[in-house]
Amino acid sequence: MSGSIFGKHFTIQTFGESHGEGIGVVVDGAPAGLPLSSEDIQVYLNRRKPGNSKYATKRAESDTVEILSGIFEGKTTGTPIALLVRNTSQRSGDYSEIASYYRPGHADYTFDAKYGFRDYRGGGRSSGRETIGRVAGGAIAAKILKELGIHVLAYTRSIGPVTIDYNHFDASFISANPTAMPDETAAEKAGDFLDKCIKDTDSAGGVIECVIDHLPAGIGEPVFDKLDARLAHAIMSIGAVKAFEIGNGTEVSSRLGSANNDSFTLKDGTVTKKTNHAGGILGGISDGDQIILRAHIKPTPSIYKTQETINRKGEEISVNIKGRHDPIIVPRAVVVVETMTALTVLDLMLENMHSRMDYLKKIYPSS
Amino acid sequence: MSGSIFGKHFTIQTFGESHGEGIGVVVDGAPAGLPLSSEDIQVYLNRRKPGNSKYATKRAESDTVEILSGIFEGKTTGTPIALLVRNTSQRSGDYSEIASYYRPGHADYTFDAKYGFRDYRGGGRSSGRETIGRVAGGAIAAKILKELGIHVLAYTRSIGPVTIDYNHFDASFISANPTAMPDETAAEKAGDFLDKCIKDTDSAGGVIECVIDHLPAGIGEPVFDKLDARLAHAIMSIGAVKAFEIGNGTEVSSRLGSANNDSFTLKDGTVTKKTNHAGGILGGISDGDQIILRAHIKPTPSIYKTQETINRKGEEISVNIKGRHDPIIVPRAVVVVETMTALTVLDLMLENMHSRMDYLKKIYPSS
Amino acid sequence: MSGSIFGKHFTIQTFGESHGEGIGVVVDGAPAGLPLSSEDIQVYLNRRKPGNSKYATKRAESDTVEILSGIFEGKTTGTPIALLVRNTSQRSGDYSEIASYYRPGHADYTFDAKYGFRDYRGGGRSSGRETIGRVAGGAIAAKILKELGIHVLAYTRSIGPVTIDYNHFDASFISANPTAMPDETAAEKAGDFLDKCIKDTDSAGGVIECVIDHLPAGIGEPVFDKLDARLAHAIMSIGAVKAFEIGNGTEVSSRLGSANNDSFTLKDGTVTKKTNHAGGILGGISDGDQIILRAHIKPTPSIYKTQETINRKGEEISVNIKGRHDPIIVPRAVVVVETMTALTVLDLMLENMHSRMDYLKKIYPSS
Amino acid sequence: MSGSIFGKHFTIQTFGESHGEGIGVVVDGAPAGLPLSSEDIQVYLNRRKPGNSKYATKRAESDTVEILSGIFEGKTTGTPIALLVRNTSQRSGDYSEIASYYRPGHADYTFDAKYGFRDYRGGGRSSGRETIGRVAGGAIAAKILKELGIHVLAYTRSIGPVTIDYNHFDASFISANPTAMPDETAAEKAGDFLDKCIKDTDSAGGVIECVIDHLPAGIGEPVFDKLDARLAHAIMSIGAVKAFEIGNGTEVSSRLGSANNDSFTLKDGTVTKKTNHAGGILGGISDGDQIILRAHIKPTPSIYKTQETINRKGEEISVNIKGRHDPIIVPRAVVVVETMTALTVLDLMLENMHSRMDYLKKIYPSS
Repeated sequence: MSGSIFGKHFTIQTFGESHGEGIGVVVDGAPAGLPLSSEDIQVYLNRRKPGNSKYATKRAESDTVEILSGIFEGKTTGTPIALLVRNTSQRSGDYSEIASYYRPGHADYTFDAKYGFRDYRGGGRSSGRETIGRVAGGAIAAKILKELGIHVLAYTRSIGPVTIDYNHFDASFISANPTAMPDETAAEKAGDFLDKCIKDTDSAGGVIECVIDHLPAGIGEPVFDKLDARLAHAIMSIGAVKAFEIGNGTEVSSRLGSANNDSFTLKDGTVTKKTNHAGGILGGISDGDQIILRAHIKPTPSIYKTQETINRKGEEISVNIKGRHDPIIVPRAVVVVETMTALTVLDLMLENMHSRMDYLKKIYPSS
Repeated sequence: MSGSIFGKHFTIQTFGESHGEGIGVVVDGAPAGLPLSSEDIQVYLNRRKPGNSKYATKRAESDTVEILSGIFEGKTTGTPIALLVRNTSQRSGDYSEIASYYRPGHADYTFDAKYGFRDYRGGGRSSGRETIGRVAGGAIAAKILKELGIHVLAYTRSIGPVTIDYNHFDASFISANPTAMPDETAAEKAGDFLDKCIKDTDSAGGVIECVIDHLPAGIGEPVFDKLDARLAHAIMSIGAVKAFEIGNGTEVSSRLGSANNDSFTLKDGTVTKKTNHAGGILGGISDGDQIILRAHIKPTPSIYKTQETINRKGEEISVNIKGRHDPIIVPRAVVVVETMTALTVLDLMLENMHSRMDYLKKIYPSS
Repeated sequence: MSGSIFGKHFTIQTFGESHGEGIGVVVDGAPAGLPLSSEDIQVYLNRRKPGNSKYATKRAESDTVEILSGIFEGKTTGTPIALLVRNTSQRSGDYSEIASYYRPGHADYTFDAKYGFRDYRGGGRSSGRETIGRVAGGAIAAKILKELGIHVLAYTRSIGPVTIDYNHFDASFISANPTAMPDETAAEKAGDFLDKCIKDTDSAGGVIECVIDHLPAGIGEPVFDKLDARLAHAIMSIGAVKAFEIGNGTEVSSRLGSANNDSFTLKDGTVTKKTNHAGGILGGISDGDQIILRAHIKPTPSIYKTQETINRKGEEISVNIKGRHDPIIVPRAVVVVETMTALTVLDLMLENMHSRMDYLKKIYPSS
Repeated sequence: MSGSIFGKHFTIQTFGESHGEGIGVVVDGAPAGLPLSSEDIQVYLNRRKPGNSKYATKRAESDTVEILSGIFEGKTTGTPIALLVRNTSQRSGDYSEIASYYRPGHADYTFDAKYGFRDYRGGGRSSGRETIGRVAGGAIAAKILKELGIHVLAYTRSIGPVTIDYNHFDASFISANPTAMPDETAAEKAGDFLDKCIKDTDSAGGVIECVIDHLPAGIGEPVFDKLDARLAHAIMSIGAVKAFEIGNGTEVSSRLGSANNDSFTLKDGTVTKKTNHAGGILGGISDGDQIILRAHIKPTPSIYKTQETINRKGEEISVNIKGRHDPIIVPRAVVVVETMTALTVLDLMLENMHSRMDYLKKIYPSS
């Protein structure tokens, strides 16, 4: 296997390349009886679509999803849901140049090292277009979670040196601006920073934050399939993510225990914590509090500046990469982080349905 | 399943609780013909053993491993290797107090929320003793890697505010001091810091770094099973880890593309990179360079200070947790990070054996 | 998951329903560098296509396969290969009748029991058209096996009371006649028997046999993933198969040990057996001899005769099922048995690549 | 992996060899809150214990199970349950002879072919003692099923030429006689037949039948994880099983559709079938009727008669195998078939808990 399946109970298997016929995903494990339309999926795809903003590639793709299976009379049937997005804007141009050398920061060299050759057209399988399958599949996971009262929300926390101010947090602003930041002032500053990047033919990175609200306590498995471990796997599998944090994250390593522990308390008769340094996870299991995670994303490796590299003949050369590059991928990756998070949480919720004899008896009351 | 199996090809399944009969692991996927003795495993277990230093719990456990299966005449047979470490120092004391409330920063509450009750003796399955199974299984993975010329090395990078100086890096010093730092000066400062923590009845966290040398290029799968994603899963599944970084990690989010990209170059006829901000991974696949990862570990939640919490009756109470606590778990966790890394890398190396028709023909030359 | 993934290393995931958009499959684990064209797959699909003979449904489907991903310049890239066959001949007719009751011998009732409702158009996911995905995926497995010198061949062994005579065995005749028997005389008799079935508005069953030649010794895992156990899984997962045999199969239960054991002997310096009652498998592992298996297939449940059943309101009724039925599915299932066998064997061959340290060193010679 | 894990949700991983330290199993996926004692497991182990009857090996093993983990205060905790049975009666004798050649009908040759060498002491991992792990794990599955009102029962259907008469069926007689037949007259005849086998230094095979009562309709997945496919996998993974049947099994291939279809009808307001040729499974999913399966078991390959074989040097030789052989393994395998069936059914029941949105909402009622 080439590692294209994610999940154990609610699974997605993605396929497709940047410049092939299209990108698709087979979603399995969606319970029967969920109302589902292509529109439910399209709204998520539109959030990652190129051409949405001046900070994204100019490649014009409609990214229209077709449902190939698994839906009958507007509801899921319990069998695999296959979704296909055709590629329509692959430029037929000459790729012989890009085929001949290894772009710095890209997977060109490692694909060649692994397979002996590569589909060099637009990055092939390593292209960011691969995330279409994740987003389409994750849209279904997110819809199931919503039906269970659970909400997942991701947004840009920082771009380059600009970080949001939580006092200005406005969730409704996220989709209304090209940075996907929930803070209008920060978004403006980040915009200025990106404009400068573009002018300098350079690129920028940033941080995406994602929160899960109303997740019941008890989700996650004790040892290897801890909720945080599975989330880390999910998020770090997104290209360009180089670090992952849960709750207070990297900060905890320099804290004292007395400052880092969250005291338990009661609120309206429910167990909760006075603080949430833990990010809603204790011993790998959700504690009923808000789950908080962060993904650190590197600057887009494709830049117009001259770079040093080697070619397939093993000669050192200087290159100027042509093509249509995003100066930053963070805003478009926000929905990828959100959907990968949804997929992970739903998968572990299904797993948790097996955790108690009581649950088995609820589904199978012996007559 | 309770998430106690790790890996797809080389797998470990761990079992056991802090105060039960013992801790064990079943290792499957070890190829036949590897010379293996209990001593090979014991040297790894000894590195995580309590009682090794003044910064570890005083619980005196010999942690002696017994091989139950899978070895014949000193070599692996290709069938499951079961390893068992008996618990010998469980105190028979009264646990009714600890059973009655939820310790801050621990999994007591989340286990109860998940299962309806918990084995409260010493943390049960959520105890740090669970890592014995990982280390024992990972010792076998590390031995296989060594036979293939690949070396994994972990060490303490920082404790509280004290970080090592790479100019003083001395690998041989790691096992020779209670901080597991590779820098004598830093180790001394860290020791002073920990002494103060103990005096203050507080605890400390830190950062563990792990490097892999001589890993061939091509290891890791393109989409969900990227080498970095799988490493993140492995490392974040270790209790108390709250953040994970690969290469330049969190730093990349504020860098420019031109500064973050590593140029390819040639060295003695081999493709390499001028810098290694990527930490040896491009597109989720090893590039032949050194792999570098970091785990951020929270301060031990068990502290002697008075803390606020609630009890099982739902009453807010103040507690002083008794027992034998480590003021820091970082030094003992070093070998856990190292072995989890070894397990992950070996697993993906096995997966990669299927990546080319050439490889199939090497194993199955048709007559 | 809905059980739509087969295999551990070389996997297929199928999707689609009889009267939906189409039937597809995602094939993962094909090693990079295999020459592959849609024609390689189409020849297998053509063998199961309806309308090939008078004993098959009159539904006219071209079953043309489209490759959506995973191939570049005529070779597999090592990433998922998605294949799609569009449905073109779904009749738009009225299904309200069939929706209202449970056809005897069909999965109508059990789908309703499982999911609360069903896609009743042509059987939905339980239709025989589901096997298109298996055949398309298995065609790739068969091609890889051929490159390794291994050949899989299935044929009809019996139809109703007519069984082939091995003295008349002619492999070239299999594809040349509508029974898929390798014996011209038996094929004629079987044809007469089927003509009578059609006249009687009844249906027939039969036995498919499959042999694997030149499989090396050593394939199969010792305990749960024995070669015969995995083959049984594969073959029994084909709709309508009610029994599975390996080697002498059911006969062995009434034999004596002295008559059933196969003596080892030498032939041209190679270990072989004087007889092959075992069907080429000992202890779940191939012994280098020919693998022989049989699938017993029930008569098509859709018949034109009046039958008793109940409707969804819970009333007992008599029904005459309309539609386009095959009087026998055995000949069309031959290629399904062949491809499921190929998938299973290849999967276990990939697994076996991990069985020895020697093999690891062949792929990863340490420098 | 060496194929030692069975199941996807309720899993067992077995380990151990005939003459090693012992045989064990790790059971994962048992829901928390099930009352469980070692006695629950021991009663199953006692049914397969050698030395129970004159038709079984004289090796005297107490096969006493030790619970190593996963139980707290008499109840399952939801975490892995490790079980260990120490070997106590391994004869320390000389195995150099058996090491030097390949016993006909055994896995000696295929293990050597796979791994390059083998643990030749008593068959190592390919010994029938391996089934201890299955029976111990399956005992837990059977207990869970009982709590849900589902009963699994296996018995000997035939031994050599002697088959039971269903008119004399007496379930209580199964455990009361050394043939495990539920028919006293047949048991006597089978006993005479076995006495003759022993006298002739030969061995016998037979058929085991297993029925499942009160399994709800809806269990099994539509495509590859059909209930019958998974049962076939489970049963064919037991050493010496050479054929598997569900319902009318091999008979169906010569039947007409009109005779093979089971008409649906109502009984006390419940949907049922007038006949049960299908063995309780339609389209791979349980239909609420009794599940019926059969395993055909070959005669024990170890016989005292002189046999032809080859040795490791590649010389043809005659051998008389010494040691303690069962003249038949069928009666001891009955409990293995029963427990493997229980494991399979429970695993699919857990999977089915994900099949409907309704079920998710039962476990996660959103507040």
